[in-house]
Amino acid sequence: MAITVVGSVAFDSIETPAGRRERCLGGAATYFSLAASFFTDVRVIAVVGEDFGAAEQAVFDKRGIDTRGIERAQGKSFFWEGSYLENLNEAKTHNTELNVFGAFQPKIPDAYRDSEFLFLANIDPVLQRRVREAMPQVKLVAGDTMNYWIKDHRPALLEVLRGLDILLINDTETKMLAGNNNLVKAARAVLDLGPRMLVVKHGEYGATAFYGHSKDTISAKTFRAPALPLEEVVDPTGAGDSFAGGFFGYLASQKELTPGAFRRAMFYGSVMGSFAVERFGTERTQGLTREEIDQRFEQFRELTHLD
Amino acid sequence: MAITVVGSVAFDSIETPAGRRERCLGGAATYFSLAASFFTDVRVIAVVGEDFGAAEQAVFDKRGIDTRGIERAQGKSFFWEGSYLENLNEAKTHNTELNVFGAFQPKIPDAYRDSEFLFLANIDPVLQRRVREAMPQVKLVAGDTMNYWIKDHRPALLEVLRGLDILLINDTETKMLAGNNNLVKAARAVLDLGPRMLVVKHGEYGATAFYGHSKDTISAKTFRAPALPLEEVVDPTGAGDSFAGGFFGYLASQKELTPGAFRRAMFYGSVMGSFAVERFGTERTQGLTREEIDQRFEQFRELTHLD
Repeated sequence: MAITVVGSVAFDSIETPAGRRERCLGGAATYFSLAASFFTDVRVIAVVGEDFGAAEQAVFDKRGIDTRGIERAQGKSFFWEGSYLENLNEAKTHNTELNVFGAFQPKIPDAYRDSEFLFLANIDPVLQRRVREAMPQVKLVAGDTMNYWIKDHRPALLEVLRGLDILLINDTETKMLAGNNNLVKAARAVLDLGPRMLVVKHGEYGATAFYGHSKDTISAKTFRAPALPLEEVVDPTGAGDSFAGGFFGYLASQKELTPGAFRRAMFYGSVMGSFAVERFGTERTQGLTREEIDQRFEQFRELTHLD
Repeated sequence: MAITVVGSVAFDSIETPAGRRERCLGGAATYFSLAASFFTDVRVIAVVGEDFGAAEQAVFDKRGIDTRGIERAQGKSFFWEGSYLENLNEAKTHNTELNVFGAFQPKIPDAYRDSEFLFLANIDPVLQRRVREAMPQVKLVAGDTMNYWIKDHRPALLEVLRGLDILLINDTETKMLAGNNNLVKAARAVLDLGPRMLVVKHGEYGATAFYGHSKDTISAKTFRAPALPLEEVVDPTGAGDSFAGGFFGYLASQKELTPGAFRRAMFYGSVMGSFAVERFGTERTQGLTREEIDQRFEQFRELTHLD
């Protein structure tokens, strides 16, 4: 089943202990759609500027991603500059230029309207909600957000959460959203806000899915996928969006959303996140094959398999 | 097979967001031996003062732990006071009184000499080495250490590492010992120092075992056990020592040390760590049953089981 994703397509200048790259192709919708494209059809809604050229377009085309929903506007694309020099787990932002993204009004091509899966990447919750409402036919809606929206745009965000099936955020965002420092209690509080499933991304330690409500300390309704201990993390940018793309892309490829499908989706999320960080920007992901992905899936299975 | 453990038996005054306890029974050898006692025979080498009374002795006796190697000295037992008010993952030490532990000279009872497993809990590496050399017959030796010994007693520690089969330390200690901030590279460097296996404890995110040497980024010789997302962490004190006790205790209970036995041992380590933090001090562990332990083991399996 096809996924429509709305979010940023951007240029990033990134410095990490492994080096520096100027103006890589980036943005949450880019990372998400590249990762998801190995599993299912993906359609992107975004806005770019005149600096988005043939080379950038080719990255999407090569993966068969539908970009008819990427609007070309006058001006420059969203630009982010950041570094991970002291801590590979947390970006330090040096510069953010919204550019054409500042006036982004998502337009949904008619050809996207039969999408059964919708992913609301990390953008203004007002826009997330508008896209959600414009696509009432979708079967499963997942989304992401960040500390900025949690802190300063809470009412709009809460409206989005009420319409979400799955929320994918990290530990800090979960605790901030719930106002509780215990992850399990915070997860339960977030589930009370609307999502039927919360996937908490732990960076180098994997991710945990919480679903359903339970008073038990140890709920069977928890699933944890590991991350792969990686010898070289070249660039963490896009790891979370790549996780989301692998997770949601795999789900969209399944005939039935069984508990087993969600578990495997968590592993495929971790797999796509682990590839993303091995090179700068989208370099690693854009050149992958499904065979490499499934090989790594087996390595993840082996990493935690008991028997 | 019996385990001999050498380490501290102490009193701890602990403050956490859940409350405060004065002078709980504590110490690495205490937590380790209680956890291991559910799997195999355990023999302790330590020193205590006159404040170690019938109530404390009963905690060991109830679990059938051999305490003939716990020397009674004049003076007070080792005492530690700490809090976890800002961060449940890291203790803030307010006071440490070595007391009788300052002059500790481990004495090995003859009845311990047929032990086939030896655990060197976190004490002065000079003492760890002395015990190791006095028990040449043991089949498997594991040990722990901490930042203090890594920083200021490196030569003595390196001698201990050369005689270890398994080292169990946390992320920070691994990176500090190796002088490398990448966990996989640091783990390889630590394996070059002697241990055949390194178990890195990640606190609330579980633990990873590294073993063998491999140039592959993704080595099949890595195994990751999850931690259980816990709704209530009352007191993190002793979680790492309880992990070690569950891990090593389970190994000692096995006829053959197969790869599967090591994997299950990692899970039993996580299980014992998860119980330890549910109440203050040793309260939770001392009252456990093997049935409860195996139930939780199954919950851990369910938490990460793919198929």
